[in-house]
Amino acid sequence: MDIRVATDDDWPAIFPFFAQIVQERRTYAFPAGLTEQSATGWWMEEPPGQTVVAVDGDTILGSAKMGPNRPGPGAHVATASFMVDPAYQGRGVGRALGEYVVGWARSQGYHAMQFNAVVETNTAAVSLWKNLGFEVLTTIPEAFEHADHGYVGLHVMYQRL
Amino acid sequence: MDIRVATDDDWPAIFPFFAQIVQERRTYAFPAGLTEQSATGWWMEEPPGQTVVAVDGDTILGSAKMGPNRPGPGAHVATASFMVDPAYQGRGVGRALGEYVVGWARSQGYHAMQFNAVVETNTAAVSLWKNLGFEVLTTIPEAFEHADHGYVGLHVMYQRL
Repeated sequence: MDIRVATDDDWPAIFPFFAQIVQERRTYAFPAGLTEQSATGWWMEEPPGQTVVAVDGDTILGSAKMGPNRPGPGAHVATASFMVDPAYQGRGVGRALGEYVVGWARSQGYHAMQFNAVVETNTAAVSLWKNLGFEVLTTIPEAFEHADHGYVGLHVMYQRL
Repeated sequence: MDIRVATDDDWPAIFPFFAQIVQERRTYAFPAGLTEQSATGWWMEEPPGQTVVAVDGDTILGSAKMGPNRPGPGAHVATASFMVDPAYQGRGVGRALGEYVVGWARSQGYHAMQFNAVVETNTAAVSLWKNLGFEVLTTIPEAFEHADHGYVGLHVMYQRL
């Protein structure tokens, strides 16, 4: 598995699993009904951020986007989002992307990294982020309407870099 | 003082104090150097959100924007932002806008309201939000580079509606 910066040419291969994951309503508070065109801005980051893909040869296994969590006076704290193609779960793609992103943020001089909305029932992700050094600062109660579990909390997770 | 929905015609009167407040780097993590045109999307909300102005006759004293904090599965939690023209501070404009916004969110059926980034040294705002029923869920450490105080925390504030 390699991780490389995504180009616009990668988007048609990212969008199908992006759309599947959003539609499942288990992990992302993104709008319903995004098209390949309208979803681009929700995933493909512009500098100073970037979007990467985890690939096995020509196959995209997952993707991550990263950049400043806020502009201006908040731009020294990074954030990131991750999506692994459900067809390629269980291969360590999320961990590889997570390690890459934390290393990227550190190398870019960010002081910390913050995840704003980690669905509390997404225990695989929560465990992985804890394993990579993040802690839960708070949980916004019932802030995510989960397809299976109804209203569940959203963790704010944080790591000083 | 009246509070009414803002129109595009109000923006030229909002932008000067918006720009002043952003440039002061004491309360908002917005980008530096926004122009009247490029700043529009940072303040003038589209439905289901809205932007309002507090007015005294033809004079705009302050403004607030409000809407869903997140799209899709997060759209039942509202958020809002407030700016009072520094020339009209101390007249209760912030309180009037805050009361309006909480009432609006309740009437729209939102379950809760969340502020994502209240600068901890903005004690007037923090006290006002507490007085209106908000609590601090957590403080992101050193997440805001303040013009006077260096790195200070950002409160996540929350109120069930």
